[in-house]
Amino acid sequence: MSAGGTILWGVGVGPGAPDLVTLRAIATLRKADVLALPRSSDFGGSTAWSIVKEHVEPGAQQEKLFLTFPMSNDPSRVRPSWDRALAEIGARIAAGKSVAFVTEGDPTLYSTFVYLQREAPRRWPGVRVEVVPGVTSVTGVPAAAGIALADGRERIAIVPAAYGVDDADELFRRFDTVVFMKMGPQVGQVVEAIERNGLLDRAVYVAKATMRGERIVRDVREVAGERGDCFAMMVVAQKRRSGALFGEGET
Amino acid sequence: MSAGGTILWGVGVGPGAPDLVTLRAIATLRKADVLALPRSSDFGGSTAWSIVKEHVEPGAQQEKLFLTFPMSNDPSRVRPSWDRALAEIGARIAAGKSVAFVTEGDPTLYSTFVYLQREAPRRWPGVRVEVVPGVTSVTGVPAAAGIALADGRERIAIVPAAYGVDDADELFRRFDTVVFMKMGPQVGQVVEAIERNGLLDRAVYVAKATMRGERIVRDVREVAGERGDCFAMMVVAQKRRSGALFGEGET
Repeated sequence: MSAGGTILWGVGVGPGAPDLVTLRAIATLRKADVLALPRSSDFGGSTAWSIVKEHVEPGAQQEKLFLTFPMSNDPSRVRPSWDRALAEIGARIAAGKSVAFVTEGDPTLYSTFVYLQREAPRRWPGVRVEVVPGVTSVTGVPAAAGIALADGRERIAIVPAAYGVDDADELFRRFDTVVFMKMGPQVGQVVEAIERNGLLDRAVYVAKATMRGERIVRDVREVAGERGDCFAMMVVAQKRRSGALFGEGET
Repeated sequence: MSAGGTILWGVGVGPGAPDLVTLRAIATLRKADVLALPRSSDFGGSTAWSIVKEHVEPGAQQEKLFLTFPMSNDPSRVRPSWDRALAEIGARIAAGKSVAFVTEGDPTLYSTFVYLQREAPRRWPGVRVEVVPGVTSVTGVPAAAGIALADGRERIAIVPAAYGVDDADELFRRFDTVVFMKMGPQVGQVVEAIERNGLLDRAVYVAKATMRGERIVRDVREVAGERGDCFAMMVVAQKRRSGALFGEGET
């Protein structure tokens, strides 16, 4: 099946606040024939839709295609959802319709779109794939917390914590700023590592940055017993060294 | 001097394309009394202004305060510019005016705003400081190049290359994706490390992502002899492992 001329967009709509959407995202959402909107359950709402619904023309004829992707790292649970999603999107592309797949944050960074971006040219030869970058929570979180992420010569590590943080001590030694995403059950282990390395005053935990229900915790020991919300992040910005204006060790 | 009630915004306006500005950035630029606009020379244009000028009300009474920051890592060259900038901004804040400091990309990530964010509470007690996050080139570049930055269990390192990349081999071993920013004279050394580690097919060089003059180089050996443009980045995304849907080593 050739999909020449058809277009598939990955549209990043930012960390959660509807006014953190870009003009290009809005224009793309309005011109697409189909809006593909991920949600984590058949019965719950779609965060992506809650961000964009006020930006879509009321009464527009475009189709809203809700696609369910369960929150899981288990391939046997995730693959059937993707098979369904690819079949649904593929049917629209085969019919010559343009599809905008909406993702929170940015489509290239830990997003459901990454898989679609990889599969599209194999499944739908000739389809054009375009990415509209969005504000990622990696910078949405420091903005909400009023801290700098990095400056000058500082290096940053971004780590999906749920897959293991046994080497946290070394990460802190080698990187000025460490961003822990997807924390799941590892919140306690991350907090322990922060405490062990004497970095409690350099850490902040933020859940639902820029969204309703935003929560900023500056003494991260308070969340040590929690399971990380899927929109939660821990940022440890050591500020041991910084830009041209700051001396070594000056903070 | 108390600056109670006055507000200083750091406004991220994205990687370069005027339509990658967020609604919140536009609203903030329109309500500020003063737009502070960095540029790299007294005689050249301001990239920040070129991004936002179409979003500001024509004929608006707000002041445009151009501030020159020379491109340099030498504190003796940079400090006098900052002293002038702080004096100029401080005078507006003392007069009760709100100031929006405009930065390309995001204000918390390698931005001139980081220094201002640090100095504001010391110099102008009571001033409110707010950050409007923007699309950073860290995701603007993968969007332009049509690649995924990271997915699933993948880890990312962000490295300002001009300060040294002697440990590039180890970075490639320990991180799935390595983003080299601020490359300056280190382009050649980065390309050598990419080649030495057999990662030429996983690397892309992008200058001026999303801007006029965008340049995407997929065989990075072509740029080995160049000095990195200040808007250039190298992304090496190994894709050795990925999300729940991908097996180890599957690409």
